[in-house]
Amino acid sequence: MDKTALTKQRLKRRPGSESRPAEGWYEPASEWFEVPLMRDEVVLERAPNQALLTRRYTDASLEFIREHEQEPFFLYLSFNMPHVPLFRSPEFAGRSAAGLYGDVIEELDAGVGRVLEELRALDLEERTLVVFTSDNGPWLEYEILGGSAGPFRAGKSTAWEGGFRVPALFWAPGRVAPGVVQEMGSTMDLMATFASLTDAELPEVQLDGFDLTPVLVRDEAGPRQEMFFYLGDRLAAVRRGPFKAHFLVPAAGKRGLETLAQPLLFNVNEDPGERFDLAPRRPEIVAELTRLRDAHQASIVEVENQLLRR
Amino acid sequence: MDKTALTKQRLKRRPGSESRPAEGWYEPASEWFEVPLMRDEVVLERAPNQALLTRRYTDASLEFIREHEQEPFFLYLSFNMPHVPLFRSPEFAGRSAAGLYGDVIEELDAGVGRVLEELRALDLEERTLVVFTSDNGPWLEYEILGGSAGPFRAGKSTAWEGGFRVPALFWAPGRVAPGVVQEMGSTMDLMATFASLTDAELPEVQLDGFDLTPVLVRDEAGPRQEMFFYLGDRLAAVRRGPFKAHFLVPAAGKRGLETLAQPLLFNVNEDPGERFDLAPRRPEIVAELTRLRDAHQASIVEVENQLLRR
Repeated sequence: MDKTALTKQRLKRRPGSESRPAEGWYEPASEWFEVPLMRDEVVLERAPNQALLTRRYTDASLEFIREHEQEPFFLYLSFNMPHVPLFRSPEFAGRSAAGLYGDVIEELDAGVGRVLEELRALDLEERTLVVFTSDNGPWLEYEILGGSAGPFRAGKSTAWEGGFRVPALFWAPGRVAPGVVQEMGSTMDLMATFASLTDAELPEVQLDGFDLTPVLVRDEAGPRQEMFFYLGDRLAAVRRGPFKAHFLVPAAGKRGLETLAQPLLFNVNEDPGERFDLAPRRPEIVAELTRLRDAHQASIVEVENQLLRR
Repeated sequence: MDKTALTKQRLKRRPGSESRPAEGWYEPASEWFEVPLMRDEVVLERAPNQALLTRRYTDASLEFIREHEQEPFFLYLSFNMPHVPLFRSPEFAGRSAAGLYGDVIEELDAGVGRVLEELRALDLEERTLVVFTSDNGPWLEYEILGGSAGPFRAGKSTAWEGGFRVPALFWAPGRVAPGVVQEMGSTMDLMATFASLTDAELPEVQLDGFDLTPVLVRDEAGPRQEMFFYLGDRLAAVRRGPFKAHFLVPAAGKRGLETLAQPLLFNVNEDPGERFDLAPRRPEIVAELTRLRDAHQASIVEVENQLLRR
């Protein structure tokens, strides 16, 4: 059997349990994945040793910070972990009580710690904002290898809280006061927030983001009161304040989405697990969120697809 | 309609949705509940204003502490909240973003805070161990009024983690070092732990508890490596280390429990939500836990029922 066929066999769904990850995902080998390791647009290696990627991404970040310590800089450190296939360096193998996924998280945590240490060592910590967050919830098809949404319902590729609600930590000693905030925010808000903190001008385009500095710096109410939950280009759910209405759900037994005859309504402050449908008891809120959805959809102006242009 | 019949109507299951709590539980009135408020064996009041119970339990505890500050004392402060029906004092109404249940929790938290403050004010905090814990997980039939098990599966009256795994905080400045511990412990261990900390002798009977001081005071491994999960007098699940096997589950569509033809197996460190059955992949661990169950059951010596004697 050639190498590619062998890899496919190791990683395919298990016979008779097609919804579960194949054994290969639990103990993957770097050589099964012919992925490029790139720096800018240059391919440095093919099928790199993935056990070293978290460390190498961290090392490259520290180097970048040192190179730019005398000027304003923007570092976007997007670790590829903990996306499957999961790897960690020998130093972290078996360190966590929570298995492979736990080891990977501990190494990421240590990597972030090294970034903070470097900022302190260079005396930059009072002139730097560090944001730690994630793009989406767990990929549930990979079971324990995909992580967990904790108390939240479902995961990635859904409009449930388990797909969208993620941790977010803002660290800026002397500017952002220590505390826990329940206000809404989105990665879409980072651009406007960074612009505000740096007195930069925003471009003259329609932005979907809000400046979160009132929450972060002045402990005021958050500017974001609404959130629109898209699945691809379809608007599946809408939230205003604590109330969230779902209009589309995955179609039973087939791919795609179907429109619910009666939307579902949850209070995600009281019921973050979205367990108890309030729609029958609160029809006026369903109506309000339906109007909000319609107004939002009517406001969309189609723009050029930048991926196609490129 | 007489008062009792009216109360029954307000609190009965809603027509057409018999699994949901009736509206009355969301905004209960103290006079619907003819419960006694007792001090020792004396009934002080019938149908007391339940909105004041958390405060009154706290007040009585502070009074007890002040009365006994010169001698060793044991205070067992068992708030009746957050058991349904839920009540909080006017001071806490609407304080929490998480609704009625959240308000109740905030008032309990403030009550515990007053106990700690009193210990500090009397200069007792370095001679007192405070343990905060719970007897079981959420009563899920009461939906949002019953609380949530967060990431854990199911709730009260089940052998899933959502039924048994609860928060536990030990506070003893100067003795218990601040930290988070993942070791196993049980309320059955409190007696042996208190005896150890106070150099008291344990009675000459077979106890199921372990002395947790190695974990609490010396940051060593915990003495409890096993846990037996009973539902009533039936042993439903057994845990050793991270592995937990379920042998009995609720019978489908009727009351009672049924024995699984094939036990379920979970690693509750890697998979605290008990989502992914490992039994097919780890039959040797299922066999080990089955032997442990059998040995435990063979070791049980029936004793006199103390409730009947009384």
